[in-house]
Amino acid sequence: MWDTLIHNGMVLTADRSFTVITQGAVAVQQGCIEKVWALPARAPLPAARETVDAQGSIIMPGLINAHTHLPMALFRGLADDLPLQQWLNDHIFPAEAQHITPASVRLGTRLACAEMLLGGTTTCCDGYFLADSVAAELEQCGMRAVVGQGVIDFPAPGVPDPALNVAVAEAFVRQWGATSGRIKPSIFCHSPYTCSAATLQAAKAAAARLGVRFQVHVAETRDETEQMLREHGCTPIGYLHRLGVLDADTLLVHAVWVDAADIAIIAGSGARIAHCPQSNMKLASGVAPVPAFLSAGIPVGLGTDGCASNNDLDLWSEMDSAAKLAKVQCLDPTVLDAVAMVRMATIDGARALGLAETIGSLTPGKRADLILVDIDQPHLTPLYHPASHLVYAARAADVRHVMIDGRWAVRDRKLQTIDLDVLLPEVNRFCARMRTCHADKTFAQDH
Amino acid sequence: MWDTLIHNGMVLTADRSFTVITQGAVAVQQGCIEKVWALPARAPLPAARETVDAQGSIIMPGLINAHTHLPMALFRGLADDLPLQQWLNDHIFPAEAQHITPASVRLGTRLACAEMLLGGTTTCCDGYFLADSVAAELEQCGMRAVVGQGVIDFPAPGVPDPALNVAVAEAFVRQWGATSGRIKPSIFCHSPYTCSAATLQAAKAAAARLGVRFQVHVAETRDETEQMLREHGCTPIGYLHRLGVLDADTLLVHAVWVDAADIAIIAGSGARIAHCPQSNMKLASGVAPVPAFLSAGIPVGLGTDGCASNNDLDLWSEMDSAAKLAKVQCLDPTVLDAVAMVRMATIDGARALGLAETIGSLTPGKRADLILVDIDQPHLTPLYHPASHLVYAARAADVRHVMIDGRWAVRDRKLQTIDLDVLLPEVNRFCARMRTCHADKTFAQDH
Repeated sequence: MWDTLIHNGMVLTADRSFTVITQGAVAVQQGCIEKVWALPARAPLPAARETVDAQGSIIMPGLINAHTHLPMALFRGLADDLPLQQWLNDHIFPAEAQHITPASVRLGTRLACAEMLLGGTTTCCDGYFLADSVAAELEQCGMRAVVGQGVIDFPAPGVPDPALNVAVAEAFVRQWGATSGRIKPSIFCHSPYTCSAATLQAAKAAAARLGVRFQVHVAETRDETEQMLREHGCTPIGYLHRLGVLDADTLLVHAVWVDAADIAIIAGSGARIAHCPQSNMKLASGVAPVPAFLSAGIPVGLGTDGCASNNDLDLWSEMDSAAKLAKVQCLDPTVLDAVAMVRMATIDGARALGLAETIGSLTPGKRADLILVDIDQPHLTPLYHPASHLVYAARAADVRHVMIDGRWAVRDRKLQTIDLDVLLPEVNRFCARMRTCHADKTFAQDH
Repeated sequence: MWDTLIHNGMVLTADRSFTVITQGAVAVQQGCIEKVWALPARAPLPAARETVDAQGSIIMPGLINAHTHLPMALFRGLADDLPLQQWLNDHIFPAEAQHITPASVRLGTRLACAEMLLGGTTTCCDGYFLADSVAAELEQCGMRAVVGQGVIDFPAPGVPDPALNVAVAEAFVRQWGATSGRIKPSIFCHSPYTCSAATLQAAKAAAARLGVRFQVHVAETRDETEQMLREHGCTPIGYLHRLGVLDADTLLVHAVWVDAADIAIIAGSGARIAHCPQSNMKLASGVAPVPAFLSAGIPVGLGTDGCASNNDLDLWSEMDSAAKLAKVQCLDPTVLDAVAMVRMATIDGARALGLAETIGSLTPGKRADLILVDIDQPHLTPLYHPASHLVYAARAADVRHVMIDGRWAVRDRKLQTIDLDVLLPEVNRFCARMRTCHADKTFAQDH
């Protein structure tokens, strides 16, 4: 007898041949996907402890957010529409220096989990400081995640002495590496311009030794690229390549300012990319050449980046933006089609995170991370192609049920692991304290 | 005694100084906004027939969609990711030729109204054929609209003889012009490459004579611009200017391929622009220079375009996309800030449609078109700046109540003028018939 049987819905597997079953069922047993098959509406149902009627829904893999800074959910909308350095130096860095503690990191992460879960994101790949608190909160909320401890050559929350940055990251990985569950530790170097060559190499060596993913922001802005050319005589990608930190366990975040030689280097190294189009748009960083990445066979996942630069953790609008941005950039409407985008937010995201054996498609043997999307609504009617609706018309609020590792995290749009009546007032109290501290510059509300 | 009192919410007026009242109230009387003022939570409430507690909500003007083709909601997701001519000739035009009738136009318009109303859009500016059916349905659904009868030099639904295209449009305007209510008739020329100079001039002359808005798609693609240069020796905007059809009652739709001289022409003529960024992105048309339009003082409204090229009628994601696209295009994060975007979707849209005296802001004396946005949710917490949330984080599903002309069209996310239990099955039956007719080319669902 199965644990859970979900039937009478359209099943979008995101498997290798992108199989869609118009009327199908998914069986879950001990946290794993046991069977995926066509099952007519009136067929007798196999026995299961729990049976879910998916009428009017698409059953699909949970979405995978390949790049986040979860605690920054507390800074959502704190400062927008500003030049990057002013945004960072006058708003984000001071806010972090004054308000980021283990407690606020847990609070921000819980807020982020609430948003992600309600919107059908079941896995994220995070990079922040005080990663132990991020990881603990993600585990408690029932999410799956790769959690990177930040490494930067400046004093940072939880790492007042930058000489210890790699050692702190290594200790975090050792602490969480022993667990074989939903949380995978990782090391996240902030960037080639905020970490020295020695730091980048030591951090990558530690990640390799411990067998975990190495994440790094790279080639995000034109300024960064010009600085690298000036200081090192090569592009940011060329620089990381020269340092020997590119391989199949490296996740390159942004990769906006890359040329054909850079793309060849990335493809040759086996490194993966986290594409964050809305952040790159909002911060006016530029447009990553994603169609060229895919042509070169580079696995590309889709990320929202932190809430301070997006301003949400919504992979539905991110899919829509990624597809449309690539088309207008290339002046070619055929690039990044709907199927490619659904893959990017599911199985390709899993590949980018090194989790493709475990999640990313509804394939028997994988962990049961899946969502039900309610398509019985005006903006999703009529239905000609499910991938088209998921990319170009569906929204986070259309997610009805969310299962992670075989357990329900959302049922009928209600969170099962987080109490919003406690969480939201607590966030509002935090925000009121921030407002008091920074009233001079940020919070003019009445224009 | 007022008809309706809405209190205890944050009021975003979108008035000239973009006044935001942290804790305020709006009074409605005989379909008009009577008073907008600060009112503390525990103050005694003035008498009203109906009192609405807006706690946890932003009260703001209804959104204005400056460009739609409503009946095309029936073709949502029918064909995506294709070159423009293949999309039009192999999919859209055949579908229209076979399936567009007065009945299907009403059905598609009703479906579009359901989506628009649930997402807080209270006014739209439409252009399609069989406009009488579009107008009748919009009126029945309780929406406000400018409705354009399509003019094109080819046989079209309801206009088999193109020699009569302007006469048909004129008759439509006369029929609806007598009513002084929510529906304003208009004449919509398809484009300078599908209408002759004589047609454009006759249509504009008729619109001017009848005192209604003249709409035209223009400068949408590079191909169109090259064709105009080849055939007429000037840009599409220069061509319309030479024909004498640009003035303050002309709405230019798209205006993507325009140069500095074109912008000066538009500004000098007083013409207005409907900006449709997601459609321009998805069809790979290009990026309109919107910051330059605003600098030149041109009123710019925001449009979704039809559902076949978006694929929704969601002005929330359209605001987000418009802001982010302009920033990345200019490599300047300060352009099209959140306040500019809220204006574009409200008061500037009203200006583009010639309705700024009537709607677009919560100003005493204007008609009571307003919405309540539920911000007591994880993805809208904390709140630092309301405009930031509305543009960068809010979604259509966050709209709780919608009032048009003083009447509720949506209460607690439920439509008051449309029965979805009747509408959606009817749309699905229509779609099944389409599927049968076009099975050969369009509807391969199982990849």
